[in-house]
Amino acid sequence: MTGFVGVADMVRWVARHGAETLMTGMAEYIEADFRRWTSFDKTERVASHTPFGVIELMPISDPDLYAFKYVNGHPFNPARGFQTVTAFGMLADVHNGYPVFLSEMTLLTALRTAATSAMVARHLARPDSRVMAMIGAGSQAEFQALAFRGVLGIERLRVYDVDPAASAKLLRNLRPLGFEVDVCTSAAEAARGADIVTTCTADKTVARVLTDDDVAAGMHVNAIGGDCPGKTELDPRILERGPIVVEYAPQTRIEGEIQNMPLDFPVTELWEVLTGAAPGRRSADQVTIFDSVGFAIEDYSALRFLRTGVAGTDLSSHIDLVATPEDPKDLFGMVGAPVPA
Amino acid sequence: MTGFVGVADMVRWVARHGAETLMTGMAEYIEADFRRWTSFDKTERVASHTPFGVIELMPISDPDLYAFKYVNGHPFNPARGFQTVTAFGMLADVHNGYPVFLSEMTLLTALRTAATSAMVARHLARPDSRVMAMIGAGSQAEFQALAFRGVLGIERLRVYDVDPAASAKLLRNLRPLGFEVDVCTSAAEAARGADIVTTCTADKTVARVLTDDDVAAGMHVNAIGGDCPGKTELDPRILERGPIVVEYAPQTRIEGEIQNMPLDFPVTELWEVLTGAAPGRRSADQVTIFDSVGFAIEDYSALRFLRTGVAGTDLSSHIDLVATPEDPKDLFGMVGAPVPA
Repeated sequence: MTGFVGVADMVRWVARHGAETLMTGMAEYIEADFRRWTSFDKTERVASHTPFGVIELMPISDPDLYAFKYVNGHPFNPARGFQTVTAFGMLADVHNGYPVFLSEMTLLTALRTAATSAMVARHLARPDSRVMAMIGAGSQAEFQALAFRGVLGIERLRVYDVDPAASAKLLRNLRPLGFEVDVCTSAAEAARGADIVTTCTADKTVARVLTDDDVAAGMHVNAIGGDCPGKTELDPRILERGPIVVEYAPQTRIEGEIQNMPLDFPVTELWEVLTGAAPGRRSADQVTIFDSVGFAIEDYSALRFLRTGVAGTDLSSHIDLVATPEDPKDLFGMVGAPVPA
Repeated sequence: MTGFVGVADMVRWVARHGAETLMTGMAEYIEADFRRWTSFDKTERVASHTPFGVIELMPISDPDLYAFKYVNGHPFNPARGFQTVTAFGMLADVHNGYPVFLSEMTLLTALRTAATSAMVARHLARPDSRVMAMIGAGSQAEFQALAFRGVLGIERLRVYDVDPAASAKLLRNLRPLGFEVDVCTSAAEAARGADIVTTCTADKTVARVLTDDDVAAGMHVNAIGGDCPGKTELDPRILERGPIVVEYAPQTRIEGEIQNMPLDFPVTELWEVLTGAAPGRRSADQVTIFDSVGFAIEDYSALRFLRTGVAGTDLSSHIDLVATPEDPKDLFGMVGAPVPA
């Protein structure tokens, strides 16, 4: 039988351990997996675009374990009462091809995205970073805040969202958790005095939610929301200010902020920074940019972390997904007694 | 909640209606969907190859419904007590990207593969076909036999498998269902006097389970087992004897029998035959060949047929796969009461 973690199990898992603790542990798994980059069989995700949004499949494997995630992105969903992003995913045994673990990944994706951002910022942001600006206060925002506190100790936030209700929701969720939150009336105001700027908005346009003027020397820009063709957030001039770190260049050139730059625009892959093959930040006044689109290794790591975390607990059940005929060559024997023609 | 059909439900569904009846109905759905070929957003499947086998994702969508299947192919599995092929798949609503239906597809793939073969043979084989040779008596064999009886009225089979136990299993499963089965000692003997030859073997090699001499004038060759790089079954000379019908040319050129031919080797896509855009069989003594590798539309059709078939019955349940926060912008609100930092 295939292990299964549904939404209710996931909610209990996060409530039991706390999102901050889980993301801090998950960041270690993600970093460890990116460090062994060459052991993975990688491919760009497969996207199906429609006028309403995108549905993507993200496969990845190493010599033992295969993972994939199904994820959608539908920017008009919230106005109709649905979430922008939902996801689920799976681990399979490479040796026999059998699915071994299925999980909801709407919440898990929120956790792994923020865990990745924080892990990357730990390598790229100035070590003395204390204040994070957040442009966009949607579904991902609280997870980003908690991951940055868990991994970097960030407790001061400057928040801006075009929708004041979103900022109010973030304030409501994060103040009780001990954050100091300033709600700002523009992105420029939010960025002022911040050490790190996280952009995470939902509109599918070539936007400039952050302008070149907003970016001060020494800032780390954690660009999350520019993640599919025609959806970017940064003034392209920002991209010329410092090293651009990406997860997987072939995919990011299609989907990330750098889709607005020439195809040979220089970028550094994250694994190169983590393994020391390429420099990250070189000085305290350099601008660093993580052009994040999300990569399958992060889902692989998150599923692996989850499976380890729920093993042997009441949070994992099983799902009847794989037929197991007594004789593997006699699948037909499973469908029971002969039915008269 | 997402609809769910597990293995036990699938077994009951097939036992309740009979595989032959289900495949006959499914063939209509598959034909109808191939006829509206241009309404689908198509792509080659995404394969992850390892020394042990292959894991594939097969996505497809039309303007309303998205489908994908996870499927593995591990030729050495049966010797270790596992099946060569297992699968599961899903339907999603293109308008909001939400998964709406998840199902086991190991059994469903067996049904849809045979239903497709029979539907294609109804258009390509001689209308007076009465005898089918089956080279390979593995998991797919009984499904092929029943689909060909349901769709074309074939009741006489000539079977050959390198493993006598496989032929014996087929005999044991099919005789009680009213088939006349001759077990043969070679592929050549099985093909002798047959109107249709189905090749469906499992070895991942460039094999010649059917030679040019085995193929008589007027035969229809239903080539199932040549379905991934390095895995073919037909003497390439057979491919020059008549029209080659394929599901989706870009995929079949990578995976099908025609991988052994030049890249410009002429083929006809199935939808062209079904819509009359291209001729199929032109004379009673022509050889026709269906170079089948399996295409995502077949899974789409099968899932659609299954979902319709189990709707409102005891065979469908629900799975807790999609998080539904009260406020779609407040995913974090789902993870419950604040946990102290």
